[in-house]
Amino acid sequence: MSYFRSNIDALEPYVPGFQPKGGGFIKLNTNENPYPPAPSVFKALRDFNPELLRLYPDPMSSRLRRKIAGTYGFAPENVIVGNGSDELLAMALRCFAGEGDQVLYPAPSYSLYGVLSRIQGAEPTEMPLDEDFGLSEEFIKAPARLKFIARPNSPTGTVYPERTIERLADETDGVIVVDEAYADFSEETALRLAGNLPNVMVFRTFSKAYSLAGLRVGYAFGSPELIEGMMKIKDSYNMNTISALLAEAALDDQQYLQEKVGLIKAGREYLREQLEGLNFRVFPSGANFLFCRPPDSNAEMIFKELLERKILIRFFDTPTLKDYLRITIGTSREMEALVIALKEILIS
Amino acid sequence: MSYFRSNIDALEPYVPGFQPKGGGFIKLNTNENPYPPAPSVFKALRDFNPELLRLYPDPMSSRLRRKIAGTYGFAPENVIVGNGSDELLAMALRCFAGEGDQVLYPAPSYSLYGVLSRIQGAEPTEMPLDEDFGLSEEFIKAPARLKFIARPNSPTGTVYPERTIERLADETDGVIVVDEAYADFSEETALRLAGNLPNVMVFRTFSKAYSLAGLRVGYAFGSPELIEGMMKIKDSYNMNTISALLAEAALDDQQYLQEKVGLIKAGREYLREQLEGLNFRVFPSGANFLFCRPPDSNAEMIFKELLERKILIRFFDTPTLKDYLRITIGTSREMEALVIALKEILIS
Repeated sequence: MSYFRSNIDALEPYVPGFQPKGGGFIKLNTNENPYPPAPSVFKALRDFNPELLRLYPDPMSSRLRRKIAGTYGFAPENVIVGNGSDELLAMALRCFAGEGDQVLYPAPSYSLYGVLSRIQGAEPTEMPLDEDFGLSEEFIKAPARLKFIARPNSPTGTVYPERTIERLADETDGVIVVDEAYADFSEETALRLAGNLPNVMVFRTFSKAYSLAGLRVGYAFGSPELIEGMMKIKDSYNMNTISALLAEAALDDQQYLQEKVGLIKAGREYLREQLEGLNFRVFPSGANFLFCRPPDSNAEMIFKELLERKILIRFFDTPTLKDYLRITIGTSREMEALVIALKEILIS
Repeated sequence: MSYFRSNIDALEPYVPGFQPKGGGFIKLNTNENPYPPAPSVFKALRDFNPELLRLYPDPMSSRLRRKIAGTYGFAPENVIVGNGSDELLAMALRCFAGEGDQVLYPAPSYSLYGVLSRIQGAEPTEMPLDEDFGLSEEFIKAPARLKFIARPNSPTGTVYPERTIERLADETDGVIVVDEAYADFSEETALRLAGNLPNVMVFRTFSKAYSLAGLRVGYAFGSPELIEGMMKIKDSYNMNTISALLAEAALDDQQYLQEKVGLIKAGREYLREQLEGLNFRVFPSGANFLFCRPPDSNAEMIFKELLERKILIRFFDTPTLKDYLRITIGTSREMEALVIALKEILIS
């Protein structure tokens, strides 16, 4: 006999990318930013008085929400913050889909969408992307209480056209969550739609472009009605004092952000050329990673050979993804080391 | 038409105690610790290199779990950590009770238990405590997938006898969550039961005795089976890098903890005597607060008069609790200021 609900007993949990405990790795497997957070973050931490930790944080995270709203052209009532965007994704499930309700998401995409649906006891349906990794007509038109899309998508890097998102919102009775974890590295965003359409939410994070994965701060935009409903179910004090403070500090230095995003985009184009020179098929990417198909179905071999050389990239051991690799864009030095290693592996 | 599940639309959210934004308050309303965190916490923060924040935290929080386990005589497999014990409470619901399943908790107690049950779509039943604020036979024997008790209870401060918890575990098919947020201020704990019984979990927090409410770190003990199941549903990176580090540092200074707990217990006895001298009925408390009934049903008046004097205590505006007050134990100076104010209000 189990004390757990049957869906929890049956659950295959989400497996995050490997986080090595020792040092010395070139870590290109979990889409972290290779550059440190902004100097404003260092300063805010230095100035913080730990005595304040004896008090609970502001349950509304008012200052952080106001600053996010200001930065992206919204009102604070359009913004909610969470313990990483993962918490916001779980909250979306708990708000919008009960047991047996349809939840849709494309495949391949962030596999957490399915895991969260199964935890909730909802009915997840994974719908294959079309050949060019675009959203299928079937996905756009299928009824659902909740649809998740990542834009740019992970692991493919694809940026679906804005017109497709609008059609998706229009054709769907339920809520569309556009997961924009990587949007800072793209020219595209659905923020305008979250401001104008009643059923579109955009989720973002400080983990990638702001280089604050360790802090766990995600944020979401949507209509005041959607935000208010999500606020009702959030843990009262879901955002800790220090993470809120440092996220605010990071927002203060948009110039630093743009500078580092520029470097990462340049690294992405450098790596694309190099991989293509090695006969990889490299897919268009609006993210801080490249999704690619090495020649001769050698993905797993390359992953293992790189691991031997202490270079970590992402290999997905599933039938549909086993011929592909996802490589996070690092510093130019890291990209050069990767290319040298790949040449060694493939040419020698 | 609403995009939300009907239980979310109908939800009355939990209302946390007032967190004033300005300074100058004597804050005795949310059971915070009046003393700063341990010097080891200050040192750990000073030594922390913010550059590490670009990386995700350890998804297993291995070091923190190991240290908690060691401190309390468990194995790491018996321990899970969460973004405050509120996150762990929400996870317990999602693990153990589906839509329509019975969830039981006494009243008055932490009203979040009911809110979380309603978010889940479970069937919450609130069962009145008996006259002395003890657990009723009906509560002990009623079938349920999940029962919550706080021990010491909030707002009453009651410590139910250990034998009662054993009987409760024995009579219940489902899981018993013993919420020990305040247990550091008591002589009693159910930790032994969490180590020995398959259906007992004990939840604790760094928010009260460790004076780290702002960090949001909760932890739970249970059988390896219960912990493993809860780990399956947790957000991959639910514990941020800095909070984990500072919680570890706090555990290192148990002497500081015991010293401050001693001061708070002494303050509790001082305040008890003073309140009784003012004809309050004061209930036995194993927590860092006193629950009391002022003379002449004056609770709301006293609450308001104290607020005028910038002293915040907790008044619950509900039919069963409106004649009571809950007062957090502060520093001796704060307790003296409170007593002077009460004398002014009641005697002048």
